Amino acid sequence: MTNNHYLVRLDWPEKSFRSSSADIEYLRSLLPEGASVEHVRSERAFLRALPKATHAIVWNFKKEWFVKAPRLKLLATPAAGRELIPEVGPEGVKIHFGGFHGGIIAESVVGFMLAFARGFFLKSEKVWPRVDFSDKCYSLSGTKAVVLGYGKIGAAIGAKLKGLGVGVEGFSRKNIEDLPRALKTADWLILALPGTTGTDNIVNAALLKKLPRRAVLVNIGRGNAIDEKALFEALKSKRIAGAYLDVRKVEPALEAPKLENLVLMPHSSAFYPSYVKDCFKELKDEGLL
Amino acid sequence: MTNNHYLVRLDWPEKSFRSSSADIEYLRSLLPEGASVEHVRSERAFLRALPKATHAIVWNFKKEWFVKAPRLKLLATPAAGRELIPEVGPEGVKIHFGGFHGGIIAESVVGFMLAFARGFFLKSEKVWPRVDFSDKCYSLSGTKAVVLGYGKIGAAIGAKLKGLGVGVEGFSRKNIEDLPRALKTADWLILALPGTTGTDNIVNAALLKKLPRRAVLVNIGRGNAIDEKALFEALKSKRIAGAYLDVRKVEPALEAPKLENLVLMPHSSAFYPSYVKDCFKELKDEGLL
Repeated sequence: MTNNHYLVRLDWPEKSFRSSSADIEYLRSLLPEGASVEHVRSERAFLRALPKATHAIVWNFKKEWFVKAPRLKLLATPAAGRELIPEVGPEGVKIHFGGFHGGIIAESVVGFMLAFARGFFLKSEKVWPRVDFSDKCYSLSGTKAVVLGYGKIGAAIGAKLKGLGVGVEGFSRKNIEDLPRALKTADWLILALPGTTGTDNIVNAALLKKLPRRAVLVNIGRGNAIDEKALFEALKSKRIAGAYLDVRKVEPALEAPKLENLVLMPHSSAFYPSYVKDCFKELKDEGLL
Repeated sequence: MTNNHYLVRLDWPEKSFRSSSADIEYLRSLLPEGASVEHVRSERAFLRALPKATHAIVWNFKKEWFVKAPRLKLLATPAAGRELIPEVGPEGVKIHFGGFHGGIIAESVVGFMLAFARGFFLKSEKVWPRVDFSDKCYSLSGTKAVVLGYGKIGAAIGAKLKGLGVGVEGFSRKNIEDLPRALKTADWLILALPGTTGTDNIVNAALLKKLPRRAVLVNIGRGNAIDEKALFEALKSKRIAGAYLDVRKVEPALEAPKLENLVLMPHSSAFYPSYVKDCFKELKDEGLL
């Protein structure tokens, strides 16, 4: 028996990122007997319920709200990005960022990479008669990827790529000084950084110059990591071969230039129907519920 | 020492499918001492050289040409498709169809499948503000693929898919009577058939009705296998969820309807720079040179 009170507010407009009543039923099935669950949509309702909450699962949480939450033991977000809830809480409050979506984000990254290498973004509107883009196609297997940010998501990407014959080097704070060497021979530079201020504009004109012309940039982390002006220039001048930006510096994002070697997606690399359920499952599996 | 004479005519317009002088140098490096190599471009030059040839590597060869080739021991094509050279030759002539491109074709298939499942073909021209297509995205892992045609290429596709968590059932003549059962629960129907007449229109309206609505068709074999009219109808009416046609009934192909769930490519699934070299390497590895 427990008298824990679980407060859920996952109210983003996209279906994947919004808790349904079926998701809440699933959460109940994971909880100990006696637990109560409160499912709210608005910030106002969230704040009203907060004093009672022992566990809060929410997209955003302001530091000043902690004083209104004397019973709180867990503050959890599905996001891996660090921008919307505090990275550190008061004593006794565990903070949790989601890592359950590594597999699905890795599928998005590998899908882009294979589709890029195999020419799916190259073919013109008119498919036949055949335009010869055969010298621009290549095999993913045997190429080399540098993954910057090697937490749960970066490592999930690395694992999937290794299975497809890609050489992978992962970088985090620990080995960052070795990055310039690795960039020189990278076919892919993949950013899986969580949006902390220390990574602002880490991909700038100087870094882009270190990459071979054949290199392709992938960002499924956070948009702060890229100096977009420098990147768009590098793509226009073919300084690098291509880019896939799932995330942007400001979202919703301003228009980007239309370039044949730039693939834009609307922060959708983790779109999938059981997103919220898998978030709850991760909390359960890690003993946090 | 040998007095074998190797005659090469690989003259398709696409760079990947056309032997370069570097490719021919590579072939020489694989041959026994004393071998001679003749590299021709036209049919006329090919036929002139044929009486001397012990080995011919060529895209197309007519049955009636065998009488002009008394020394011939090997007739080889890079193609896996059966349409352009005879499937059976006179006694003493080994016929070889390429199987070296299984890995690269598998990358094209998996690239399409991941890009489809992860929404890369769904997003509109305008990426932001975000359009919610999250309920149409899903994980490739955990889905089920039926591969029709399970030779070297089909098996290479199967292997790559299994590595990504996809359930795979391969079908060939041996177990074809079990296909209707498998279609009922297929998320993907992948055709890797070699274009023999026995497979004409194997995918017709009746077969398409056996698939679940979520199913997606992939054809990287030969276009004869599909009743295109029935397929386009099925795509229009959302009877199935999508299709990727690398090959068409007639090539260069007539226009197909523009449908958001139809991805067309110009018979390019095996485009890659070392195509011809890898064809020669396969012949060497199989002891055929």
